[in-house]
Amino acid sequence: MEINLVSDTVTKPTQEMLRAMFKAEVGDDVYKQDPTVIELEARVAKMFGMEAALFFPSGTMANQTAIKLHTQPGEQLIADKYAHVYNYEGGGASFNSGVSCCLLNGNRGMISAEQVAGAINDPEFYHSPLTSLVCVENTTNKGGGACYDFEEFKKIRKVCDDNNLKFHLDGARIWNALVATKDNPVAYGKVFHTISVCLSKGLGAPIGSLLLSDKATIHRALRVRKILGGGMRQVGYLAAAGIYALDNNIERLADDHRRAKEIGAVLEKLNWVEKVEPVETNILIFSVQPNINEAVLMEKLKQKNISISSMGHGKLRIVTHLDYREVMHTYVLETLEKL
Amino acid sequence: MEINLVSDTVTKPTQEMLRAMFKAEVGDDVYKQDPTVIELEARVAKMFGMEAALFFPSGTMANQTAIKLHTQPGEQLIADKYAHVYNYEGGGASFNSGVSCCLLNGNRGMISAEQVAGAINDPEFYHSPLTSLVCVENTTNKGGGACYDFEEFKKIRKVCDDNNLKFHLDGARIWNALVATKDNPVAYGKVFHTISVCLSKGLGAPIGSLLLSDKATIHRALRVRKILGGGMRQVGYLAAAGIYALDNNIERLADDHRRAKEIGAVLEKLNWVEKVEPVETNILIFSVQPNINEAVLMEKLKQKNISISSMGHGKLRIVTHLDYREVMHTYVLETLEKL
Amino acid sequence: MEINLVSDTVTKPTQEMLRAMFKAEVGDDVYKQDPTVIELEARVAKMFGMEAALFFPSGTMANQTAIKLHTQPGEQLIADKYAHVYNYEGGGASFNSGVSCCLLNGNRGMISAEQVAGAINDPEFYHSPLTSLVCVENTTNKGGGACYDFEEFKKIRKVCDDNNLKFHLDGARIWNALVATKDNPVAYGKVFHTISVCLSKGLGAPIGSLLLSDKATIHRALRVRKILGGGMRQVGYLAAAGIYALDNNIERLADDHRRAKEIGAVLEKLNWVEKVEPVETNILIFSVQPNINEAVLMEKLKQKNISISSMGHGKLRIVTHLDYREVMHTYVLETLEKL
Amino acid sequence: MEINLVSDTVTKPTQEMLRAMFKAEVGDDVYKQDPTVIELEARVAKMFGMEAALFFPSGTMANQTAIKLHTQPGEQLIADKYAHVYNYEGGGASFNSGVSCCLLNGNRGMISAEQVAGAINDPEFYHSPLTSLVCVENTTNKGGGACYDFEEFKKIRKVCDDNNLKFHLDGARIWNALVATKDNPVAYGKVFHTISVCLSKGLGAPIGSLLLSDKATIHRALRVRKILGGGMRQVGYLAAAGIYALDNNIERLADDHRRAKEIGAVLEKLNWVEKVEPVETNILIFSVQPNINEAVLMEKLKQKNISISSMGHGKLRIVTHLDYREVMHTYVLETLEKL
Repeated sequence: MEINLVSDTVTKPTQEMLRAMFKAEVGDDVYKQDPTVIELEARVAKMFGMEAALFFPSGTMANQTAIKLHTQPGEQLIADKYAHVYNYEGGGASFNSGVSCCLLNGNRGMISAEQVAGAINDPEFYHSPLTSLVCVENTTNKGGGACYDFEEFKKIRKVCDDNNLKFHLDGARIWNALVATKDNPVAYGKVFHTISVCLSKGLGAPIGSLLLSDKATIHRALRVRKILGGGMRQVGYLAAAGIYALDNNIERLADDHRRAKEIGAVLEKLNWVEKVEPVETNILIFSVQPNINEAVLMEKLKQKNISISSMGHGKLRIVTHLDYREVMHTYVLETLEKL
Repeated sequence: MEINLVSDTVTKPTQEMLRAMFKAEVGDDVYKQDPTVIELEARVAKMFGMEAALFFPSGTMANQTAIKLHTQPGEQLIADKYAHVYNYEGGGASFNSGVSCCLLNGNRGMISAEQVAGAINDPEFYHSPLTSLVCVENTTNKGGGACYDFEEFKKIRKVCDDNNLKFHLDGARIWNALVATKDNPVAYGKVFHTISVCLSKGLGAPIGSLLLSDKATIHRALRVRKILGGGMRQVGYLAAAGIYALDNNIERLADDHRRAKEIGAVLEKLNWVEKVEPVETNILIFSVQPNINEAVLMEKLKQKNISISSMGHGKLRIVTHLDYREVMHTYVLETLEKL
Repeated sequence: MEINLVSDTVTKPTQEMLRAMFKAEVGDDVYKQDPTVIELEARVAKMFGMEAALFFPSGTMANQTAIKLHTQPGEQLIADKYAHVYNYEGGGASFNSGVSCCLLNGNRGMISAEQVAGAINDPEFYHSPLTSLVCVENTTNKGGGACYDFEEFKKIRKVCDDNNLKFHLDGARIWNALVATKDNPVAYGKVFHTISVCLSKGLGAPIGSLLLSDKATIHRALRVRKILGGGMRQVGYLAAAGIYALDNNIERLADDHRRAKEIGAVLEKLNWVEKVEPVETNILIFSVQPNINEAVLMEKLKQKNISISSMGHGKLRIVTHLDYREVMHTYVLETLEKL
Repeated sequence: MEINLVSDTVTKPTQEMLRAMFKAEVGDDVYKQDPTVIELEARVAKMFGMEAALFFPSGTMANQTAIKLHTQPGEQLIADKYAHVYNYEGGGASFNSGVSCCLLNGNRGMISAEQVAGAINDPEFYHSPLTSLVCVENTTNKGGGACYDFEEFKKIRKVCDDNNLKFHLDGARIWNALVATKDNPVAYGKVFHTISVCLSKGLGAPIGSLLLSDKATIHRALRVRKILGGGMRQVGYLAAAGIYALDNNIERLADDHRRAKEIGAVLEKLNWVEKVEPVETNILIFSVQPNINEAVLMEKLKQKNISISSMGHGKLRIVTHLDYREVMHTYVLETLEKL
């Protein structure tokens, strides 16, 4: 029994999801003739109260497309210092869109409207880049699965409107946030100009993300997706997995959250653990005492068939997911307690 | 019976291919842990005598990555005026790589070593872009499925070596070329620095292309693919379709070629056809007499359940493929003769 | 007596121009506090019936800024195959703006409204770049100093308006065109969205170009100039040379044109000359008989202190200018006749 | 008597400098035929122990060219959070080079080797941008004219060499640093891959910066300068001002530094001043007590013909320079004391 708690991207489709995939009706999505993709796009758009959606091969491409749609080369976006768009998309914001990032020192990856307001460059002072976009992540990945208070989004949107900025949500783990906060997704569609959502993390689909927005913006997104090479042919097989996941794998995220919290509760009692960050969803970040060597600890766990990941500087990360089942969980709790 | 001769990208997987996909062993390809993808990459690399290969969600991304790998912003590539990389990749060469295209007036989409040699800018004359790459397509798409004489590739490579240029093959329909010419694919690996090949045209897989090169170049390609958003998770389902296609769908391309030639032979006898371009593979381009309205003609065929496409200026295009079966072919030949 | 007919960029300021420069009132133009620059910008803008102008260190930067202002990365501009923006700006259109060029086979560097109309990509066909800009050059440099018929500009503008395109004039030698055609510059301001004009070619100033447009566009141009590094400090010295040139060096361009025509008339009679292209302004292109070696011919002239330049393929170019005075002209005519 | 302490860029050439400018021998620098430019480039290169130099219209373009020369799109540079290349070059690093900035929280604009070492991304972790360049500024502009300890540069270079990074110095005010620290400029040439120096700040020339490096890099820089539009014609007039400044205006920077320190000493005694940052060269940053309104204070000074600038958040900046003479200084000291 191999237990992989490195990321929720490692999940594999169940037999039921596979069956849904392979009976999918497909067409050539480059010509927008794939009925299953069209169904998935319509469904997710509606779920978030948006007009339209577009399927992407990855969350990185969905985010990068959003940045491109909202900015001109030379402009600047505002994000938290932990932002995926800055840290883990290969420098894409600069490569694909020629924009720079103004990084804020947020709270567990979450920035405030006040911080945003203070970071906007004077648009008349042309020596500095023109600020044109704010990106937030919910839940935050590097911030340990933290969930924004929805009221803060409304305040940030107000700052955006007052300063002619666009507002993008990297919703790679939006499903976890929705389950944890019981927020209404339709409200998200009102507060963001674009939202990216991912099917291949907590939801367990093998491939795919969507970008949501109004019709005109999604029409422009089609062109950007083509340029980046994201136009694919019979995509319906992948879209069918997404539809299956929407039907079956959202509510069960509560189990992932409970398990992460239970692991956190165990860790808090261990003397070799320095600190456990608050656990809100399926990501748990903890730090070990200075005298503990992370690599040795990870290796010990590995010998017991448990893989977790290091974030450097004494911090470790555990991510629960669909393929981390109750029997594994019992074993992990026991193993940690005995370690 | 709907007969779609618009493109060979419209093919859908057979039940056998779907079964192969269904039972694929998969992993997270972002971490290079998908065994089926690794198998496909190794197999195609070996087939062309290359060291390594990388899976891409589209041929556009594979080509765009190759251009990026071989050039710096501001530089120039040389290609035929019909080149897919210039005409049908959304302006990606400029968007993704900041390079311009020097277009040559080739023969049915094929350029000669002599033309290339005459188009290289003097590297010391810094007012003009530095020429750094030559791209060719085999077979040529807009050129009507024409196949290069392999000797010309060797001559172009010589010009490239003498002038410090790289040489890329857009092999979207390389399988058709290999079947038509009986060229040895291993020889291709020796003459090109990079080759892109496509699984979703003649081979009938739903999604996917590969870029082939030496190990160091493919290592760099991984970074470019990430930036463009082409890193996907459980890709093995798609790779399995590719493996199935390599095993089963290459030799049968000869049928597509024969059928295209037979359609050509019928068209040549029709008085409303002005000219049929030479048919070498599965693409057939013909022009109608000036008094014939293309749109009306296409509509007439459409009423008989046959879809073909217009290239403008009185030219029409027919593409045969895996889903165009003998019974359809008989019907198409009869219908055209009676039209 | 060294006679340099290679280009009109080699002219040096006269003592009078230097005196005007010397006594210029200056300020920090980065803060827009240089009164002489402000005077020059206002004057040239008014001359062409435009709202505003901005000083640039080079014509290349003025053109590149215009391209940037009118396009988004991935889009396409239409120009003649001889266009300076494609051939001699280092690949800047792709580097600075990420745009590709659709090159037309014009007449001596001049394109027609009909050609433009035929080259616009269907905006709904997102596989091809979106066409967004038309660039013309007047006079044409590589086209041999040819002057457009102003009516053609009006027709091209109509095509631009009908297709949502912008229209830019590279007016590096617009003064020559105005003197040759007696066109009213105010009409130019009505037909183009942006115009670049150069002070350092026929006009004889040492450095400087201006970009003309409406106020909002020039306001945006300030930001692009800053990013490209074209913001300079006490620019008034250079602007003063421009003002002097506008006062003193425009009408005399007629002398340059007469001299170029007289050289053309002499060349036409020589048996080693194959063809002299029509001479309209200060650029003369001629080709030599196949048995004549260009390099040898140029060397012979060089020994007689006359420098001209080769355009390759048996074509040679002569450019007359402010520093090419009557006494030199007499000598050149005699020397050519005797060669 | 207007006293402008806003920046050292506002200085105007003296009559002697103007005379040097207008008797300069010039040529067409685009063809590298301007002898005065060649002399200046050779002289500055030699001064810093570098092989070659290239004249630029602005420090921004010199820095941007350096960034371009050392990076590929998508890569990342490391700099202090106050860096001019990030804050005041219009977002050029992303626009011109497609690179992102990893900003460090340095000391008065100065970063340490240790900080640099900790900020380099793992080159094998391709999700994050590849780190390829370190940029430092000496003296620091936004850091208040602070001067690096040269030993730190050597340590940073060691980190660069160990990690395959390039090392660029933004030497906009390197002359001030050299005068203040008595460092040997030749040592700078050994520790940096490229250095930009500015002629139009403390040195009082109207326009111009130079980029210094080895011959091969400067050869490549010529192409980048062309693309950005920095190739100019008879540049010798500007270069002559630079040569004059090197001969006459370096040593006198000590006066600017003394005056800045004397102003600092006066400010320290004033009860409405909260803090005066250490004064090392010609820039002085101070903050006012929370109850003092910056705008009102600046207006009061303005009424007494003294202009200074605000940095926001209660911080004000004073810059001494060539045009700030002793008589003005006496007046400023008296005025501040009485305020």
